[in-house]
Amino acid sequence: MQQPIQGLKPEPNQGQDTRFSGQHFIHGQWCGEASGFQRFDPVANQPLPEWFANAGMAEVELAANAAAGAFVAYRRTSPRQRAEFLDAIAAEIQADRDEIVLTAQQESGLPSARLEGELARTCSQFKLFAGQLRQPLETVYVDLPQADRTPLPKPDIRLGSLPLGPVAVFGASNFPLAFSTAGGDTASALAAGCPVIIKGHPAHPGTSERVSLALARAIARCAMPDGVFNLLQSDRAEIAAALVRHDAIKAVGFTGSLRVGRLLADICAARPEPIPFYGELGSTNPQFLLPAILEAQAETLANSQVQSMMMGHGQFCTSPGLVILAPGEAQQGYLATLAQQLANQDAAAMLTPGIAAGFQREFAALLQRPGIELLAQGKAATAKHHTRPAALRISATAFLGRPELQQEVFGPYALVVCCASKDEMYAIAEALDGQLTATLHGLEAELLAEPELVDILSHRVGRLIFNQMPTGVEVCHAMNHGGPYPASTDVRSTSVGVRAMQRFLRPICYQNMPAPLCPPELTSDKSNVVSR
Amino acid sequence: MQQPIQGLKPEPNQGQDTRFSGQHFIHGQWCGEASGFQRFDPVANQPLPEWFANAGMAEVELAANAAAGAFVAYRRTSPRQRAEFLDAIAAEIQADRDEIVLTAQQESGLPSARLEGELARTCSQFKLFAGQLRQPLETVYVDLPQADRTPLPKPDIRLGSLPLGPVAVFGASNFPLAFSTAGGDTASALAAGCPVIIKGHPAHPGTSERVSLALARAIARCAMPDGVFNLLQSDRAEIAAALVRHDAIKAVGFTGSLRVGRLLADICAARPEPIPFYGELGSTNPQFLLPAILEAQAETLANSQVQSMMMGHGQFCTSPGLVILAPGEAQQGYLATLAQQLANQDAAAMLTPGIAAGFQREFAALLQRPGIELLAQGKAATAKHHTRPAALRISATAFLGRPELQQEVFGPYALVVCCASKDEMYAIAEALDGQLTATLHGLEAELLAEPELVDILSHRVGRLIFNQMPTGVEVCHAMNHGGPYPASTDVRSTSVGVRAMQRFLRPICYQNMPAPLCPPELTSDKSNVVSR
Repeated sequence: MQQPIQGLKPEPNQGQDTRFSGQHFIHGQWCGEASGFQRFDPVANQPLPEWFANAGMAEVELAANAAAGAFVAYRRTSPRQRAEFLDAIAAEIQADRDEIVLTAQQESGLPSARLEGELARTCSQFKLFAGQLRQPLETVYVDLPQADRTPLPKPDIRLGSLPLGPVAVFGASNFPLAFSTAGGDTASALAAGCPVIIKGHPAHPGTSERVSLALARAIARCAMPDGVFNLLQSDRAEIAAALVRHDAIKAVGFTGSLRVGRLLADICAARPEPIPFYGELGSTNPQFLLPAILEAQAETLANSQVQSMMMGHGQFCTSPGLVILAPGEAQQGYLATLAQQLANQDAAAMLTPGIAAGFQREFAALLQRPGIELLAQGKAATAKHHTRPAALRISATAFLGRPELQQEVFGPYALVVCCASKDEMYAIAEALDGQLTATLHGLEAELLAEPELVDILSHRVGRLIFNQMPTGVEVCHAMNHGGPYPASTDVRSTSVGVRAMQRFLRPICYQNMPAPLCPPELTSDKSNVVSR
Repeated sequence: MQQPIQGLKPEPNQGQDTRFSGQHFIHGQWCGEASGFQRFDPVANQPLPEWFANAGMAEVELAANAAAGAFVAYRRTSPRQRAEFLDAIAAEIQADRDEIVLTAQQESGLPSARLEGELARTCSQFKLFAGQLRQPLETVYVDLPQADRTPLPKPDIRLGSLPLGPVAVFGASNFPLAFSTAGGDTASALAAGCPVIIKGHPAHPGTSERVSLALARAIARCAMPDGVFNLLQSDRAEIAAALVRHDAIKAVGFTGSLRVGRLLADICAARPEPIPFYGELGSTNPQFLLPAILEAQAETLANSQVQSMMMGHGQFCTSPGLVILAPGEAQQGYLATLAQQLANQDAAAMLTPGIAAGFQREFAALLQRPGIELLAQGKAATAKHHTRPAALRISATAFLGRPELQQEVFGPYALVVCCASKDEMYAIAEALDGQLTATLHGLEAELLAEPELVDILSHRVGRLIFNQMPTGVEVCHAMNHGGPYPASTDVRSTSVGVRAMQRFLRPICYQNMPAPLCPPELTSDKSNVVSR
């Protein structure tokens, strides 16, 4: 074990034989003893030499108070000041991109090209929010006074918005950059005017530290208040509960499993003051293949399916884990191609030993279910910790009425359901749990003939896709990344795109406010203004 | 007890010696045995002869299934069809206005002029949403495809919205029309495309029936699906829990007490599928009187306070129950005028014996608290069930650190806190619980000198008012009627105004959707459109 680093330090310790301080970042200070847990190389399947600190209740208290203190100053920053801060964060992450990508690669095993793309996406998210903050508001609600209205005069009423307060963020293991320390939750909370406490994911603590260093530089450069961003390193579950329970925390952004997400959501709802919990929990992303397209393009569709389910070795929340095949002989061609393509796929390390073990356990359990058949597996594993891709098949009759078969298996996996009638396709659509996405594959004419299926599916998903695979979530204005429970814990919100910022804002009505006190964006002299 | 009415009937029974069937309205049918509870005249303090049915689990099941069934057709109605339906509801309520007002007056004891105003407001709420549905969307998010983008083409992405599903509504006793059976929650849910089940308030079951008759006529006139609106009569608390627990219910609108609201909110959060619970729970609506205005206008301010706190005999959620006086000799003038004005106020019946008893209990408990003094009381009660208005006073030092003194006392009551320094005013502002509203009273110059107080208060309220009393909530675009917990259970939402409809909608992203399937409002060929 390396020598623990003592006390508060302004910079991570550079004197050790390591690139990392292993510390927390709280109220602008690096602190804590780097003796809690080691970072881990999932490809080599062994710990890396560096140790990281484990936050306890004291650090939660310090960070929550730091964020609450910073909120007083940060909530008064102008949108333009926050835009500059967000741009500075993007620039500082870019400036350290090689080291960040290298670190993330060591800790996640993801290819560097993928991580370079993810880093670019991470920066572009900050820039997107910065751009949005520089724009006038899309809609301004102003009700002008009517002094002569009877029976009572109408007052001047204007609708503004306020940040909720300090936000706790829990990043995901599968996107160590874009959905983690400086991911979409952090970017959108900071854009909204909310300080952030990130509970660093224990699968990539070094990445969290490097990214936090970039944030620290941006804070200094923009003279933002200490405490506006805080990092707690920990591999202990109880710290998460303590953090969301702290009364300084006013909202939570979470990306992860249904089990942990629901646990934390329940804690948030049971607090003396309940707070919003935005959990993006994952999905099986069903693929509905209509008969004519299946007949016409069975091979292409099977190829796309394998390609999409193998992205990041299946560790995408939008991975297509459920395929519903229209009735017809074309099913055979689809199944044959899928089996053949999947057989060519390598086994590989998962992001963490825990994810690999979960995959094995869930896959083994599914294999025992009645009616399930093994359709195909990838190449045999060359190392014990590698996970072999797999696809199962089942008939619609065996699938229906068995909600446990709808569970997400996080990894390179899909269940193909063969329907004997279109009624069965409808029945499956009706029976679906809430999903992040679903895709309808069909020739134009058959899609237009199924408005009812479109309607049913739309009420089960956050994003309804036509003739495209679900992997890949655009960061843009019209994106919605969320969905009915259990895909997310708040169907009204998106964790990706411009509107993600709305999660951390709330309305406030100003009545009869003296103009000099009024936020500048609300000083229009027109009613119900749309200013852009 | 009147003869129970048997079985299903298409119309409320007119053959009895009563104007009421006393039944539930489920799936377009009047049903249930009118033998559960009697309606009550709070002014005479005795039951009225008519009996009403008490819904049990069977009726909850029927109504929930009826609403779920209706949702399939109702969610596919166009905004224009829903606008016509809402206008028809307003017209049908207007058509029966005399009978509705008379019934509400018997059951609430509120003056008929007030109820006529409330009926007009109720109708105007439907018309406001109807108008909104006829307008183009304020913002349309469209991301146009970019086929030549590298490394990957950008798909066509459009953001729509969908209704959540059947909504359970719990009306308030204090607004038997505007916040009840056909109140703002019902109007906004129906506008959004959500069927409604209202659990009728037991304090005005006859009013609920008359209003439901108007809704039933509008449903028939507009050929809306049976089950789009359902009324359950009940005076039993357990029915509320069963209703919000039902898996067909997808959101809840509630106006009432913190105790019941929190109980139902907790049930909603603990469901297998948690659902949004919009509870508007009340507030003490603090009045901050700054020194110069207190000096200049002590009498006027005290008069306004008494007038406002006496509206509806104090039974408004925006009743000003807490007054914070700036230091200075002018406090004495304010207190003297307030005492004198209050002494002229009549005791009167409350909306229900339960509310009267609650007021007595809470007021008596407050009188025992250290540091509390009786400032004034209204005229002595002439009947045992009448409630006498009252005001208490306390010093800021005795008030601070005693959160129990912040509780809302529902009725004609205010607590006046006398500050010895401006620091104490700030400390009270900092210590405030979440509020629907707060008012800052000040001369323009002193208001402009207190941006920090404005900032502190704004983070504790849903509506920040300047130099006006909080009673009276405009139904308009810029209104926000909600606030940080415990004023409401969802600070992100308003229960009054155009935006109330948003509570029952959620986003959905359509990716690469064939144009003929696309909702017409999203078929723009411009990016990030603002169409109005």
